[in-house]
Parts: sequence; structure tokens; C-alpha cells
Amino acid sequence: MILNKIKSSIQEPRITLVGAGPGDPDLISLKGVKALNTADVVLYDALVNGALLNHAPEHAIKIFVGKQSDDESFSQDAVNKLMIDYALNYGHVVRLKSGDPFVFARGFEEINFADSYNIQTEIVPGISSATGVPGLHKIPMIYGDLSESFWVLSGTNAKGEISADLRGAAKSNATIVVLMGIEKISEIAAIFKSEGKERLPVAVIENGSTHEENIIVGIVDTIAELIEDHEITSPALLVFGNVVSVHPAFDRIRDFYAVLAEG
Amino acid sequence: MILNKIKSSIQEPRITLVGAGPGDPDLISLKGVKALNTADVVLYDALVNGALLNHAPEHAIKIFVGKQSDDESFSQDAVNKLMIDYALNYGHVVRLKSGDPFVFARGFEEINFADSYNIQTEIVPGISSATGVPGLHKIPMIYGDLSESFWVLSGTNAKGEISADLRGAAKSNATIVVLMGIEKISEIAAIFKSEGKERLPVAVIENGSTHEENIIVGIVDTIAELIEDHEITSPALLVFGNVVSVHPAFDRIRDFYAVLAEG
Repeated sequence: MILNKIKSSIQEPRITLVGAGPGDPDLISLKGVKALNTADVVLYDALVNGALLNHAPEHAIKIFVGKQSDDESFSQDAVNKLMIDYALNYGHVVRLKSGDPFVFARGFEEINFADSYNIQTEIVPGISSATGVPGLHKIPMIYGDLSESFWVLSGTNAKGEISADLRGAAKSNATIVVLMGIEKISEIAAIFKSEGKERLPVAVIENGSTHEENIIVGIVDTIAELIEDHEITSPALLVFGNVVSVHPAFDRIRDFYAVLAEG
Repeated sequence: MILNKIKSSIQEPRITLVGAGPGDPDLISLKGVKALNTADVVLYDALVNGALLNHAPEHAIKIFVGKQSDDESFSQDAVNKLMIDYALNYGHVVRLKSGDPFVFARGFEEINFADSYNIQTEIVPGISSATGVPGLHKIPMIYGDLSESFWVLSGTNAKGEISADLRGAAKSNATIVVLMGIEKISEIAAIFKSEGKERLPVAVIENGSTHEENIIVGIVDTIAELIEDHEITSPALLVFGNVVSVHPAFDRIRDFYAVLAEG
């Protein structure tokens, strides 16, 4: 009897890595909601919509572990350790990350770290903004003669440099989606220009799928100016490719260049 | 009074395009579930999990519009027309598609067709198997020195041919995800071989995120044989790239080649 009592009071430590999706709180998966429903602790990132925390029980501990600018208090190392510590002491930790946890986020390192402690882990994928957000604006990734594939890159690699893959991407016929690239837009546009793609259509989507969403559509040649004029800031994603030309806002740009060509 | 009565009995026609996710019925978004909850009609594809239909009201009409092999009764044209017809006569049509509706599926054409009838449309993105399924197997898309980007392609393009983009993909350092490529595996592997990538790690995931899920891990040189030996069939996705080497099943392959190298 006493043994049973002790057993039932000790929570089984486990960690669920949940992708919260691109921003709209209703774009989390049903599986993610169910994980939150049974959370004892939620560790969440900066870009995670706060409304999602309402899916966790009232008693659950909710901790913001997002990196704020110049604030190094929550390094990846610190998050890893918090995750283990809370799992061992409280039971079910939900690690809530924006987008999909295995695309750009450090989901792999976090799961590996938990595995090294023999703590049970589960992964719940999320809608990556790379695929979900352009679709919300009726920009298809792959479409007829316009594109047969799409290539997703980060604006900067792990070393903080522009990825060498961007040059290959600019040469290719794929739809190119660049996440976290808005601050490097001039350098990124220069790479496309060096491949003779000054007039390639580009869409910039800020705060995709949220109420603060903004989209601008242009071409490589002028996109950096447009971003400055419209004061678009992070988080925003860039879509380079002919598929952007199907967006209604592109009609006026096409007309403009048609006039120039005839003039 | 009479006018009001008539008005309230006529449903406002509208169409919601919903991504059902990769297979696990709990990987649909909360927003997708809410759309289904208010559906008068659900038009669903072959790869959509039947359990999702339980989110629709009992009175809702549920119609399978998936293409079965050699059965041309539901062409894209027929689906488009059904969608409009049901919206005008019944109200809210949910068009439920596997994965994300704007990645490979013909979501763009369907939305465009509805727009041409001035029917109100909404898009609910889904988890694309391209990003969600490898993550479920703890294979990251982007990871440290192993990969700085990922490139998603279809095994065949709109004309039924292998996409010309595959050659560029095989040359690149990106993680390459090929959807619907299992039947063309010999030709696809040959492209990677022609780029000297015989030993590039490959994962094949069949029925990702469902109870019938299967994963095999190998290298380009032998993947076609492995697929045949394990009788892997469609739907399955292919992941080419060094990120696959972090999968536990790859250890034994690495050891095998290490032995060969020393032998």
C-alpha cells in the first residue's frame, strides 16, 4: 500500500518536443494540444504564441526560454539542462518551439540530450512557416512550368555567415524560401543579381499567419528598398521564384515592366 | 419575415482547403478540426486518414475524390466542379487534402477555380510530410556541418518525367527530400551516382507517422535493392543527405564501410 502511494506520487519523467506552427495559435496540431493538456511544465520560445499556454493545465509551470537580444541567460545549454531538471522533478515537460522543431530549431540537440539521460521523449511535428505561410497567401511552392521544387535555407548558417548553399539556390530553378534572412537582404539579393536574376519575383511575408501579418511583393532588383520603405522587420520570410508572379499584387509589377519594355 | 426565413435556409457557399498532415490523424491542425466541425460537405483524398471524417458533423456529406489507379472518374476538373456544386447547394465545403495543400497538391488550382465563382475561400495549411516525417525519426533537415538547407522535389514533374531539378539537387550540399519518388528510385539513385555520391546516406520512410510506418536507412549505391528487399511501396519519401547519418540505424552501415576501408 505505502509503496503504491509513493509510486503514484512520483511522476514519470518525459519530454515532448512540440512544433507550435507559424504563429496563428490554431495552427498547432491536435497532437500538440493533447501534449500541452498533460504538461506539468512548458518551456516555450520567443516566437510561440502565448495563447497556446492556455492548453496547459493551470497547475503547469510555464517558463519563457526564448533568447532575447543580447540576453544570453538562456543558452541552448541552459535550456537543455532546465528541460532535464524539470522532467526529473515534475514529470511531463513540453518543449514548445515555433514552426517545426526539426527544421531549423535545435530540436535534434534537445532530443539527443534528453536521450542521454534515458528520459522518454516524443516528437510532435509542426507546420513550418517555410511551407505553410506562402500557401496562406496563395503562393504555391510547386506549380506547373513555374517551379518543380522548393529549397529552404536560413539567412545565416550556424557560424552567422550567409550559407554557401544560397549561391546554388540562386542558380537553380527551384522556389527559394529563406527564413531569418531579412537582415541580410542586400547581400542575398546581390547573390541573385550576380546570377542575372534582377527581375525574379520575390515575396516578403512578415509575421506570417498572425494578425500583424504583412506581405510585400516585388522583384530582386528593388526588394531591399521595398523592405526598408515598408519597415518590414524580423520575423519575416523571403520567397524567391516565378511562383510569386501568381500573387495578385504582382499584376501591377508585371504591367510596369511591360510598359518599360514597349516604351 | 418570409424573406428572412428563405435567407436563413440558404447556406452561404464557402470552401475551406485543409491540409490533413502526413497521416497520423492527430497531426491535423486545430484550425483544420474547427473547419471540419462546421462542414456541410467534405471532399477527401486517398491519403487522408478516414478517422478525420469524425470531426465533421453527422449530417455532413463525405465524398471520396481520390484518384485510384486507372480510375479517371475523379479528374481535377471533376473535383473542381463538385466543389463548386456542393458549395452552392449545401454551404460549407471542406476540401481535405493530405500533407499541406499548397506544396505538391493542386490546392492553388482549386482555390483559383473557387475564386472565379466568387465563392469565399480559406486556406488551412497542414504539416507537409517532407518536413514532418523525417523529424519524427529524429532526422533533422538542417544540422551543423552536415546540412545548411533542404530541397524538396517530386519524383516526377507534371509531365510524368523525372524533374530536371534533381540533377542540381544531386550536385548540391542540401538535404534532399523526394516525395513520390519510390517508383523511380533506380533512376534517381543513378543521378546521385553520376555526381560521385554512391556513399551518400539515404533514408526511406514508408507510410510516415502512421501505424504502418517503416523506415530503412542505407546509402545511394544500394538503396534501390534495399527498397526491393524490404518491399517498400508508395506512399514513401526519400531523404538523401549526410543528416541521415545521425540515425541510429546508420551506425552499422558506417561500421561496415569502416571495416571495408581498413580491409
